[in-house]
Amino acid sequence: MMMNSTWGIIATWRMAFDGINAATTRLQREESAETAVIEAVKMVEDYPFYKSVGYGGLPNEEGVVELDAAFMHGTTMAVGAVASIQDIANPIMLAQRLSQERFNSFMVGEGAKAWALANGFEQKTMLTERAQQHYEKKCRETIDQGLSPYSGHDTVGICAVDLKGDICVGTSTSGLFMKRPGRVGDSPLSGSGFYADSDVGAATATGLGEDLMKGCVSYEIVRRMGEGMSPQQAAESTVNDLEAKLIKRYGRAGDLSVVCINKSGDFGAATNIDNFSFSVATAKHEPTIYICRREGKQTKYEVASPEWLDAYQARITAPIV
Amino acid sequence: MMMNSTWGIIATWRMAFDGINAATTRLQREESAETAVIEAVKMVEDYPFYKSVGYGGLPNEEGVVELDAAFMHGTTMAVGAVASIQDIANPIMLAQRLSQERFNSFMVGEGAKAWALANGFEQKTMLTERAQQHYEKKCRETIDQGLSPYSGHDTVGICAVDLKGDICVGTSTSGLFMKRPGRVGDSPLSGSGFYADSDVGAATATGLGEDLMKGCVSYEIVRRMGEGMSPQQAAESTVNDLEAKLIKRYGRAGDLSVVCINKSGDFGAATNIDNFSFSVATAKHEPTIYICRREGKQTKYEVASPEWLDAYQARITAPIV
Repeated sequence: MMMNSTWGIIATWRMAFDGINAATTRLQREESAETAVIEAVKMVEDYPFYKSVGYGGLPNEEGVVELDAAFMHGTTMAVGAVASIQDIANPIMLAQRLSQERFNSFMVGEGAKAWALANGFEQKTMLTERAQQHYEKKCRETIDQGLSPYSGHDTVGICAVDLKGDICVGTSTSGLFMKRPGRVGDSPLSGSGFYADSDVGAATATGLGEDLMKGCVSYEIVRRMGEGMSPQQAAESTVNDLEAKLIKRYGRAGDLSVVCINKSGDFGAATNIDNFSFSVATAKHEPTIYICRREGKQTKYEVASPEWLDAYQARITAPIV
Repeated sequence: MMMNSTWGIIATWRMAFDGINAATTRLQREESAETAVIEAVKMVEDYPFYKSVGYGGLPNEEGVVELDAAFMHGTTMAVGAVASIQDIANPIMLAQRLSQERFNSFMVGEGAKAWALANGFEQKTMLTERAQQHYEKKCRETIDQGLSPYSGHDTVGICAVDLKGDICVGTSTSGLFMKRPGRVGDSPLSGSGFYADSDVGAATATGLGEDLMKGCVSYEIVRRMGEGMSPQQAAESTVNDLEAKLIKRYGRAGDLSVVCINKSGDFGAATNIDNFSFSVATAKHEPTIYICRREGKQTKYEVASPEWLDAYQARITAPIV
């Protein structure tokens, strides 16, 4: 029952590239968008050097790793999400499982963990020695000196469309580095961190969750694509509109970055920062890492250079001093 | 600096009526929409016979009361929210306080409780003997017989516009009765359970949170009002569209009820159930309780009769047998 002539997958950040590569093979051989998204997010969660997602994710202000994740199936509109959960190996798998529940599909904290363990999910200590070192360094550099510690909240969000025409989206994050225990950002919130509708497309966001949720950006991007905007137009106009509104109303705007894809496999990305990267592959576009920069109100991107990629790899694996 | 020639306040359910009455006095004497909303929600939270909000709220499947609440200021777009929190007297006050934070404005579970206690919020045992009796009865009637226990999730959501033109919204709920520990519904989720924009209006939802969050209904209602729809058109069309989509895509739709108000003080309400009530007062409209029924795709409402009100009061205070 093939209903779509194309496939595609797009993700926030360079860290998703290996997952995008693996998903390319899956989508080419007619595996589902759901599987492609989940397996790609899992690869990011499992890689210890990505310090904002899953294993190796950065801890909260008490040194505890608390994770958020969500999954949405754009055909059934089913949503599953988890927030502020500790020591479960793959939060995205738990979110996927919860998306199959009619009731109790968004769970948080101790209750979410207890349910996960009772339902066979793997317990795993998610704090790595490296993340602990990052934490201690951050304490020395900020809290110990009375400075605000808040920076770094690089959610992985992945949208995929498959050859059957199903469109899905998944997110996973350790949230704002040095967050207060129990803090939840946009990543597990439907419409803010993610949204998918197989009649249209999907979108996902990364940045300051507290600001992204003020604008329901992912829902709005999908809605604008549904009204005929190209993914790039929808992404750019939504980010620009929210940024302008926040500056006018709230006095400032945090980091706002998004990616999206429509059912034709056309994609878009927009940001209000200068170092946002994304990873993408479609039937017409080989797996590629792009680096974004903003020119006026437009987001421009170019293929990541070998030098950029080398510097990235060196940075994420460098000793923490 | 008076910028608006009118005021108004609307809330889900009859239970908000006393709060709406009190808010009427406040709004008439030029107090803020924020104060009106917070004080009105607090009255619902504090009244022990309202079994779905605050003190006296119904517990989860383990007999523990877990509360969700949110507040949004439509002028600054500031959002504060709390979910799955135990034994804090007024979750709406905590949500209001968190809306003043740039970071960590949505907090859940133990972390939220610890922060609340450290910041002077009152600890209070929120489980009442009556709620405990409801719980035991529900266990006997459903779980003990292998039946699904899920019913009852009557969030109070209140939208207000004040004489300065500020528009705010607040929600508070004990969530789905017999929910799993850690379950979170739409009430604390920006765009789903609530949304406010002082240039346009505000909306709030009650019903099956798992389904309401699939459609970002509150955001969508405000958006449609912003495009020129009357509040009633925006509420009805959004509920109808989401219900139709859920039935087509998800196979069924849970309870979906909404209220909204625009900056002119015009209001709307829509539902896909037959016993939804709401409370409203505006500069042009004395405090009134309405009972909704659905006729085809339209939501009709009439003033609650003395008989209806008597039966309501008898029901919420009747012995639990």
